Amino acid sequence: MPDSLTAQRVDLLRKKMQAAKVSAYLVPRQDEFQGEYVPAYAERLKWLTGFAGSWGVAIVRVKDAHIFVDGRYTIQVKEQVDTKVFKPLHLINTPPHQWVEQNLKKGDRLGFDPWLTTVADANRLSAACEKLGAKLVALGHNLVDAIWDDQPPRPDAAISVHPTQFAGLSTEKKLEQISKVLEKDGAESVVLAEPSSVAWLFNIRGRDIPFTPVVPAYAIVRRKGKAEIFIDPAKVPEDVIDHIAKHAIIKKRQHLDAALAALGRKKAAVLLDESSVPAAIRNALAKVKARIVSGTDPCTLYKAQKNSTEQQGARAAHRRDGVAMVRFLHWLEQEAPSGELTEWGVAQQLHAFRAASPEFKDASFGTISAAGPNAAIPHYHVSEESSLPLRMNEIFLIDSGGQYEDGTTDITRTVIVGQPTDDMRDRYTRVLKGMIQLSVLRFPAGTTGAHIDALARAALWKAGLDFDHGTGHGVGSYLSVHEGPARISKTGHQALLPGMILSDEPGYYRAGEYGIRIENLLLVTPPAKIDGGDREMLGFETLTLCPIDRRLIDARMLTREELDWLDAYHARVWRELRPFMDGPEATWLTRVCGPVR
Amino acid sequence: MPDSLTAQRVDLLRKKMQAAKVSAYLVPRQDEFQGEYVPAYAERLKWLTGFAGSWGVAIVRVKDAHIFVDGRYTIQVKEQVDTKVFKPLHLINTPPHQWVEQNLKKGDRLGFDPWLTTVADANRLSAACEKLGAKLVALGHNLVDAIWDDQPPRPDAAISVHPTQFAGLSTEKKLEQISKVLEKDGAESVVLAEPSSVAWLFNIRGRDIPFTPVVPAYAIVRRKGKAEIFIDPAKVPEDVIDHIAKHAIIKKRQHLDAALAALGRKKAAVLLDESSVPAAIRNALAKVKARIVSGTDPCTLYKAQKNSTEQQGARAAHRRDGVAMVRFLHWLEQEAPSGELTEWGVAQQLHAFRAASPEFKDASFGTISAAGPNAAIPHYHVSEESSLPLRMNEIFLIDSGGQYEDGTTDITRTVIVGQPTDDMRDRYTRVLKGMIQLSVLRFPAGTTGAHIDALARAALWKAGLDFDHGTGHGVGSYLSVHEGPARISKTGHQALLPGMILSDEPGYYRAGEYGIRIENLLLVTPPAKIDGGDREMLGFETLTLCPIDRRLIDARMLTREELDWLDAYHARVWRELRPFMDGPEATWLTRVCGPVR
Repeated sequence: MPDSLTAQRVDLLRKKMQAAKVSAYLVPRQDEFQGEYVPAYAERLKWLTGFAGSWGVAIVRVKDAHIFVDGRYTIQVKEQVDTKVFKPLHLINTPPHQWVEQNLKKGDRLGFDPWLTTVADANRLSAACEKLGAKLVALGHNLVDAIWDDQPPRPDAAISVHPTQFAGLSTEKKLEQISKVLEKDGAESVVLAEPSSVAWLFNIRGRDIPFTPVVPAYAIVRRKGKAEIFIDPAKVPEDVIDHIAKHAIIKKRQHLDAALAALGRKKAAVLLDESSVPAAIRNALAKVKARIVSGTDPCTLYKAQKNSTEQQGARAAHRRDGVAMVRFLHWLEQEAPSGELTEWGVAQQLHAFRAASPEFKDASFGTISAAGPNAAIPHYHVSEESSLPLRMNEIFLIDSGGQYEDGTTDITRTVIVGQPTDDMRDRYTRVLKGMIQLSVLRFPAGTTGAHIDALARAALWKAGLDFDHGTGHGVGSYLSVHEGPARISKTGHQALLPGMILSDEPGYYRAGEYGIRIENLLLVTPPAKIDGGDREMLGFETLTLCPIDRRLIDARMLTREELDWLDAYHARVWRELRPFMDGPEATWLTRVCGPVR
Repeated sequence: MPDSLTAQRVDLLRKKMQAAKVSAYLVPRQDEFQGEYVPAYAERLKWLTGFAGSWGVAIVRVKDAHIFVDGRYTIQVKEQVDTKVFKPLHLINTPPHQWVEQNLKKGDRLGFDPWLTTVADANRLSAACEKLGAKLVALGHNLVDAIWDDQPPRPDAAISVHPTQFAGLSTEKKLEQISKVLEKDGAESVVLAEPSSVAWLFNIRGRDIPFTPVVPAYAIVRRKGKAEIFIDPAKVPEDVIDHIAKHAIIKKRQHLDAALAALGRKKAAVLLDESSVPAAIRNALAKVKARIVSGTDPCTLYKAQKNSTEQQGARAAHRRDGVAMVRFLHWLEQEAPSGELTEWGVAQQLHAFRAASPEFKDASFGTISAAGPNAAIPHYHVSEESSLPLRMNEIFLIDSGGQYEDGTTDITRTVIVGQPTDDMRDRYTRVLKGMIQLSVLRFPAGTTGAHIDALARAALWKAGLDFDHGTGHGVGSYLSVHEGPARISKTGHQALLPGMILSDEPGYYRAGEYGIRIENLLLVTPPAKIDGGDREMLGFETLTLCPIDRRLIDARMLTREELDWLDAYHARVWRELRPFMDGPEATWLTRVCGPVR
């Protein structure tokens, strides 16, 4: 039996490792912008190991090789990776730095590409190495690139202006905000390495990677004086140059090193966010003995708190998205009983409904279209080959979203084809109760996602049930569908602030049988007085407009408060979407939005 | 106008400071055991400043003096302290180490008594001093003691054995548990400075301070070999000597220094809990260059997780306490409308009902007996002089508890004398909803108090209401009524573990009008399968047995789940307490425990 492709590639890599004088080499999934999605040229981990998940890292040594993946991928990794070459490990239970500490030896040299690893990760690895007398070695070139013959070219899609009519705030105003943060943090400048921050700050968007219109660029922003953006000039059309030039100098990526050196030599404090900045940038600054201040990317909180224009945009985007979803669900209810539909075909159809609207730019992530037992896999990825048919009396779950210039959507609906079992209705109703409990919540300033996550789970917990993912994540404005810093989960310690958009998506998964998830996006509303109350409370405005399958609800399990919410929600969905519907679609919408009692 | 007593004492203190060559001096409220209650001789802060609260610290300089107290005491401090001498500051907003950093100067020497300050606090103060070029100076004698002529003597109450029939586990077994923790932490020994740990480990109890039967002693516990207890031998009767001698050598407190020095010289790692160990102990170890390992007091988690004997004891104690509470509430309902009752007299009467049972040892804290507007002060302290009468159509709140050898109780009931307003019923019902939401909760392993605190508040939040204290605290077993490490609050990051006892006491306070709090104690039950469920869930068993005033409940605001809990709770209270009741008390109990619908 011949060696697998993986074995051959690892052999080549080991030769390069020898030449580079390292005894181990780190191959992360991230590219130099640390995002969830990466362009084809940066799929180094996939090319080397076969693993196609969205998060993971490999460590290759002369005598062995390991791949670290999280709980979502423990099954997938065994299907995709030659486990004779790469031994899978659990990324959370055994993080790479811990493995390094337990397995490397004195004198070992662990090579890595400092552009693909953040300062924080590099610090952890370096500390682990130092404890052993080993060394973390930043290499000047990437060893996978050196052996990847047909590595795809870097994408060259042009970036575009994100107009103020959608952004709501000019770059000038945003720079003033950042300047204030820098003053507070005692820094004269900041190096931005998070591409959604660059996109947000300069009101520009890119098209290099699917789903996420970020701009692959670094930037140096100063308290006073012009900013600099480092980007391939071929990607910047005339009109964007004019737009940017008011506030920033456009420079080639190759000039970043020189700019960092110049910044460092000035000895004025430079702010770095260690969780997003590549180690290479820190190293360049450290080399010239720059004064580095560790802190949070100053764009993060401003970006997360959508301004009123972005909030209006989100409402419009969700109305538009709701129309597509209603057309889709109506179509699905007509067609599904035929038995002819497949997960793949259904996802294509939903895409077509969304794409019919001229404002639609892209999906906001790869649609999860999951029938029957596949719905029990929270991050199921449908392909044309694996696609299951939709069968009678089975549950169908679809989690999808759209990128529109005025907003990003993310919605999950779970429907029954045919008749549900009592069990399905019980579970569905418990998931719905959790979803509603967050929707109706009011809360004081300072409340975090960790404080309220249990409200979405309590109804499941009482029946001995739970789900193994967070309840909600932040969502960008025509940006990343997963946006920090807030999230609703046990570890979400960021306070929820007015203008943040978060998903509310509890679920229940019965392995091998069915899965349920119901997801709306919520906008955090500002502190407001409540009649008769003493204190102002924040709250949530539901953005998502789409009926919830009443056939799966056991109304007897809902409290009056929950029933009231549900009926009011359906009445609102009908009121807001009915004007865009005609004929059978309108009739269907009126029927499914009726009161549940 | 002559100087106040405070001014005279501060003058004397300043002379001693001069002699000791310090420019500032720290006077904390704690004694050398860091507890919530301290014996009279250790009330140094009160003697110097007049402030009688349970937490605070003063810093005296030649030119000025400050007293730091938290939000509970901002009003009280102004009434009790001569603010011409001591300027009050907010302990949380301006902690002493922060004040030090902002106010001391280079060359300043801040004196303190290292027995009255923990390692953690001393480290914070020392770091603040170092930043300025000032110095934190541990003094060999206490400067307040040096000027306090009529300082009361140290209490000399004899300690006693806490028999295994109540403790559930022998000291031998407990020492085995501690030995395992030490092994895991890589330490050969631990110095225990938390008196509830010493009491728990050696199954002994003390009577030096009110409410809390801890033992004022330090101990050195080894992985192998006999432990040592450092205590005044006059406090240890023959039978206790016999009990202890099996596992530990009893030594005079004066011998602790020598023992620490011996321990340090052995170079074997010594575990210290920096949050409870006085700086003096760390300093003694550091002097001989001991190998110190920082960690958690190894007794903390074992003590918190009550064993089955302690759980049985808690149930018996709560039944007994419930009988006293029912007799009291029946008496109150008869007598209150007369208008003759006062907060003080009512508290005495409740004490008499508890004291009637031979197992009653002491109250578990100073009873909060609060009528009308006083009920709006969560930590109101009644005195014979300040005592308000109970008036018609006003709320009366009583928060109290008992120490029994088999368990510690803590219960709050809020009742109406006469007729409640609609507002009172609305608020009372919301508080009750919160209390019930925790009572009925099931939750997976790993859930913390911070994760569930919001469940007790959501009904209040929806009406723009909240309360400014945690929802619940841990409770000891014939030990401290406030026991760590778990608590139900926004900052309670300890996972809830089977056997822990926690209070569930949401409230609502309308300043100047009325206050509401309903408190039951809950026992965390082990993970258990739920019919039809996938996962085992922990839960709560309600320990407290006492009716909840139905006249204050608006049943229409309760969900079916809440109504079911309430009726079932009252049915259980009746079933468990009715056998101990006769005549009118029995009739009353039957009436108030009827279904609410």
